[in-house]
Amino acid sequence: MIAVVIPLTNFKLTLAYDGTTFVGWQRQASGRSVQGLIEEALRGIEGAPVAVVGAGRTDAGVHALGQVASATVAHAIDAVALRRALNATLPPDLRVVRIDPVPPGFNARHAARSKSYRYHIICDEFISPFDWRFAWHIRSPLNVAAMRRAAERVSGKHDFTAFQAAGSSVISPVRQIMFSQLTASPVSETGLEIIYRVTGDGFLRHMVRVIVGTLVEMGAGRLNPADMEEIVASRDRQKAGPTAPAHGLFLVDVTYDADDSIPDRNADGAEEDGPA
Amino acid sequence: MIAVVIPLTNFKLTLAYDGTTFVGWQRQASGRSVQGLIEEALRGIEGAPVAVVGAGRTDAGVHALGQVASATVAHAIDAVALRRALNATLPPDLRVVRIDPVPPGFNARHAARSKSYRYHIICDEFISPFDWRFAWHIRSPLNVAAMRRAAERVSGKHDFTAFQAAGSSVISPVRQIMFSQLTASPVSETGLEIIYRVTGDGFLRHMVRVIVGTLVEMGAGRLNPADMEEIVASRDRQKAGPTAPAHGLFLVDVTYDADDSIPDRNADGAEEDGPA
Repeated sequence: MIAVVIPLTNFKLTLAYDGTTFVGWQRQASGRSVQGLIEEALRGIEGAPVAVVGAGRTDAGVHALGQVASATVAHAIDAVALRRALNATLPPDLRVVRIDPVPPGFNARHAARSKSYRYHIICDEFISPFDWRFAWHIRSPLNVAAMRRAAERVSGKHDFTAFQAAGSSVISPVRQIMFSQLTASPVSETGLEIIYRVTGDGFLRHMVRVIVGTLVEMGAGRLNPADMEEIVASRDRQKAGPTAPAHGLFLVDVTYDADDSIPDRNADGAEEDGPA
Repeated sequence: MIAVVIPLTNFKLTLAYDGTTFVGWQRQASGRSVQGLIEEALRGIEGAPVAVVGAGRTDAGVHALGQVASATVAHAIDAVALRRALNATLPPDLRVVRIDPVPPGFNARHAARSKSYRYHIICDEFISPFDWRFAWHIRSPLNVAAMRRAAERVSGKHDFTAFQAAGSSVISPVRQIMFSQLTASPVSETGLEIIYRVTGDGFLRHMVRVIVGTLVEMGAGRLNPADMEEIVASRDRQKAGPTAPAHGLFLVDVTYDADDSIPDRNADGAEEDGPA
């Protein structure tokens, strides 16, 4: 068999990680970051520092099935060999799932057209030893129908200031939500797994987790599902529910234009999304 | 709502655990054992030592979805309250899934009629960050059809000495295998998840893991699938494959007679199964 070698200098990495023991995506002064480990691994391969840009700056404890990052190296390298070398170097809770060529100047954050997240809740007396790191465990019963209706009301183009971590500042808090759906299925004699799925053109800091925290308040009867539009319109963080725990959240997918070569939509405004 | 209180003194516990950081089922001089944690938790509730008997003595690293254990306490306690109290005390990687009443003298090990295990293999260049603790990762391709045929040949009543950990001694190495099946399904563009499921009236020490190690040798072309009967008949551990790693193995289920009151089938012979 002849291996087809595609030498790359500009590439995008699709990454999966178990966020449990990471301080988050972003390299920090101390602690184990996803960006830090990828940059160190690439530095080892390239022999020089390589900057890596992530599409979504996932917070500590948030998981990823399809985080995307971009990087540029001076010495062209085969995608398959690079994936093998990275996976041989990285710890088992962080994997490079794919490597694809991109045009020069491609920036995984700025070029992202949509991001999809999934949030898992287990509503039961107890949570399985295999799920507790990956779902929010809620013991009291939730009104799933109420949560489902409220989840649908999140769709559309809105100013999501009410769902943004307090103290955040972005140029514009308006985001377009293309998909917002909550589903539930039984996981035991008494338990329910509730999954909230959301796709948007971008998300403010903690936005998905505050939406989920608000939906849970509605499911528990502490907030009225009919008030979802009103809470959004208030632009008041105090009106929304608490921030759901990080460990139930998964960054599932980041999409780009088909040719990945369309000029940076944010090159002028330099608007950037906050961490999830 | 009126709670129905069923006070118990003899009960069986159905347990689930992530075996990653346990030294195994059995209490040992040092290290974190499942039996040890359950006994300590029951001692805290009962105020006196309580002996707990497990159906299968899973080895270090082996997981359980439905391990069964029996215990007797002097002071009757409600099953629901007991489950809550135990789950509030135990660490999140060990959960009490059910508690059921049993007749006095019930012994979870001796009364077991069948045990079912599942073994997970991921055959791919890399393994997901969410799977690596729960499946054997094999990089080279495997002939699944050959493995499937060989797996079927394990069924029946046989002397399984060839599949027993070296140095084990049991009164009889004969076990009846009622179900032995291998299936495979894609998990990525290139990867396969292979699951081996086996049910028997009992298993010798390491028996499932040696069967899996042998099936993998056959899938890799290092052993001939047609030789499965011959390997069994040889009663020679050297003829079988290596012992598959513990972390791919799950104890799924233990069954008992419907009324759980049939006298101990092994009360005279005192034959006991070895750890998985």
